[in-house]
Amino acid sequence: MCTHKIAVIAGDGIGNEVMPEGLRVIEAAARRFNIDLQFTTMAWANCDYYLEHGQMMPSDWFAQLKDFDAIYFGAVGWPDKVPDHISLWGSLLKFRREFDEYVNLRPVRLMPGVPCPLANKKPGDIDFYVVRENTEGEYSSVGGRMFEGTERETVLQESVFTRKGVDRILKYAFELVQSRPKKHLTSATKSNGIAISMPYWDERVEAMGPSFPDVRWDKYHIDILAARFVLSPERFDVVVASNLFGDILSDLGPACTGTIAIAPSANINPERTFPSVFEPVHGSAPDIYGQNIANPIGMIWSGAMMLDFLGNGDANYTAAHDAIVRAIEQVLEHGPRTPDMGGSASTTDVGMAVAELL
Amino acid sequence: MCTHKIAVIAGDGIGNEVMPEGLRVIEAAARRFNIDLQFTTMAWANCDYYLEHGQMMPSDWFAQLKDFDAIYFGAVGWPDKVPDHISLWGSLLKFRREFDEYVNLRPVRLMPGVPCPLANKKPGDIDFYVVRENTEGEYSSVGGRMFEGTERETVLQESVFTRKGVDRILKYAFELVQSRPKKHLTSATKSNGIAISMPYWDERVEAMGPSFPDVRWDKYHIDILAARFVLSPERFDVVVASNLFGDILSDLGPACTGTIAIAPSANINPERTFPSVFEPVHGSAPDIYGQNIANPIGMIWSGAMMLDFLGNGDANYTAAHDAIVRAIEQVLEHGPRTPDMGGSASTTDVGMAVAELL
Ligand SMILES: CC(C)[C@H](C(=O)O)[C@@H](O)C(=O)O
Ligand SMILES: CC(C)[C@H](C(=O)O)[C@@H](O)C(=O)O
Repeated sequence: MCTHKIAVIAGDGIGNEVMPEGLRVIEAAARRFNIDLQFTTMAWANCDYYLEHGQMMPSDWFAQLKDFDAIYFGAVGWPDKVPDHISLWGSLLKFRREFDEYVNLRPVRLMPGVPCPLANKKPGDIDFYVVRENTEGEYSSVGGRMFEGTERETVLQESVFTRKGVDRILKYAFELVQSRPKKHLTSATKSNGIAISMPYWDERVEAMGPSFPDVRWDKYHIDILAARFVLSPERFDVVVASNLFGDILSDLGPACTGTIAIAPSANINPERTFPSVFEPVHGSAPDIYGQNIANPIGMIWSGAMMLDFLGNGDANYTAAHDAIVRAIEQVLEHGPRTPDMGGSASTTDVGMAVAELL
Repeated sequence: MCTHKIAVIAGDGIGNEVMPEGLRVIEAAARRFNIDLQFTTMAWANCDYYLEHGQMMPSDWFAQLKDFDAIYFGAVGWPDKVPDHISLWGSLLKFRREFDEYVNLRPVRLMPGVPCPLANKKPGDIDFYVVRENTEGEYSSVGGRMFEGTERETVLQESVFTRKGVDRILKYAFELVQSRPKKHLTSATKSNGIAISMPYWDERVEAMGPSFPDVRWDKYHIDILAARFVLSPERFDVVVASNLFGDILSDLGPACTGTIAIAPSANINPERTFPSVFEPVHGSAPDIYGQNIANPIGMIWSGAMMLDFLGNGDANYTAAHDAIVRAIEQVLEHGPRTPDMGGSASTTDVGMAVAELL
């Protein structure tokens, strides 16, 4: 039996409230399935740390983290303390890039017991993945200002797409599709308006298609694709997208299934050369912090994805993942529920309820 | 009484089917309200023209169009004939940019008789505007490829934001908000991920805010904003966004109100130095072209916006606009309806029904 080393970073705001519940549940699952996890908590990568040290993380953060198997991550950001682009580029976005976590995998699933904002949908109707490129593209701090402070002020912002970056995310998505019943891939583009990078993206999809003859693929411009998420979410199976488009679609998808408070995500380095990061889709929500009312299910579900990833195909870990997801489904259906889901339970109540079912 | 010169460009696909209905209705309204319109049809700016001439428009298109008061525009694009980035950059996007139509104004309104994909919404609940920057930002053909065709292939795509471009769209939006009951402006951003241009956008919003003390404004990152369009569309009044974000939000908003087939848009040059373009939000839809089943309401509603614009505050023109919108509402409520709205009427049936109510 091997020991999995996990770094725990709660971050800001409700990250600190949902993290204990995530840990409670994965520890319960680990006991039941005899999985050996070793946790190390890092007290940095949050805005208070920044206010004290002038940086989000210690200078040796890379060395401190690089040998972990995974990072279990809450949420970062507290705009009243530190501007978001500083807090995020100083933590989460650094991990994604420097640990080469080039896949951001986000399931979009309509769960039982969750009131759906779309009319006439039931659990099972919506069930797909967003596969988001996670290291390049539109997320860039390359660019600058000219004629600063004058009427001629001009700001250039570079997006950067590389063949390596585009091809590897497409390959991951095509392969994922092969394991799905519908075998249907949708590529998000905007090649009619963004005239250099997006036609390139389309070209690479077309070049890869023939290597996966069993996969049916199509492409949609991001504007109409966002509309289709609302109008016909049933038709999607796997959606592959650039960094920005994937970001938008993986908040929009969960919104269409009820609440982004329960959506999980995995920032994966498929080659396992560096740790992968598992975090809920929701942010740090300073507005509700301190009341112990944040929904911990996104954090818990992300923990399940982490176990699955650590198992790397081992059936026992997959069983642990599935057991957590089933426990989540039961709690969603029968309660207790936090206020965002129409209940009055606390963060802790929900975490304990899920853990008890294990 | 003055004569308004209008250039008519049907474009591709269903643009050719909805245009006659749009004309039918605005001609009916013009007769009733004694407005003098003079139409000139242009047979170019479509993909067949491109296949014949190697360009979307004649070389003197600018001279031919510049003295019109408005351009009534169907839809362009037929990807099986011409790649979208060529057809669009060769027509619509040229108009927007070279005629300095820097405002793209798109109402998002839940209309009577339209089945809403969101649960528990009724007409009146959703009623806001998307004000989209229409000439710069992410829509750019600046950039290029390096190491083409090799493993090192790298594609750079520039976004360009200028103080002039950002400030004038923000000013338009702040002023529009002042005329609205809620006086609430939402700015779309992504300054936590797109690290140069979006923090700049935020800065300009903050700089302008104090000049409009009666306007309450806030900002949302585009991912969570898209989610809120689905989860709480009631809360929006005016949403101002960059070119790309506005594009996404102004398809998503209409999707949340039932169907993008009826949504109108105006590409406005507020200084009237060049013609403005009025076009439905929907595209050319080659898949349904030729059956006379396209919904003409987006085209008709865009015509109403054109009359309002031509009147420039004149109450008679506003009355013409309002009469068309009321006629649209009646037809939406009582039929006839095209198949996309659950009916079996033709494009022509719907156009005639709206015209008759005038
Ligand atoms: C056709 C396309 C270039 C255009 C755009 O992206 O602006 C369309 O989607 C729109 O919204 O008018
Ligand atoms: C916080 C932010 C930088 C981040 C992103 O945009 O990637 C978040 O929205 C996400 O989706 O993980």
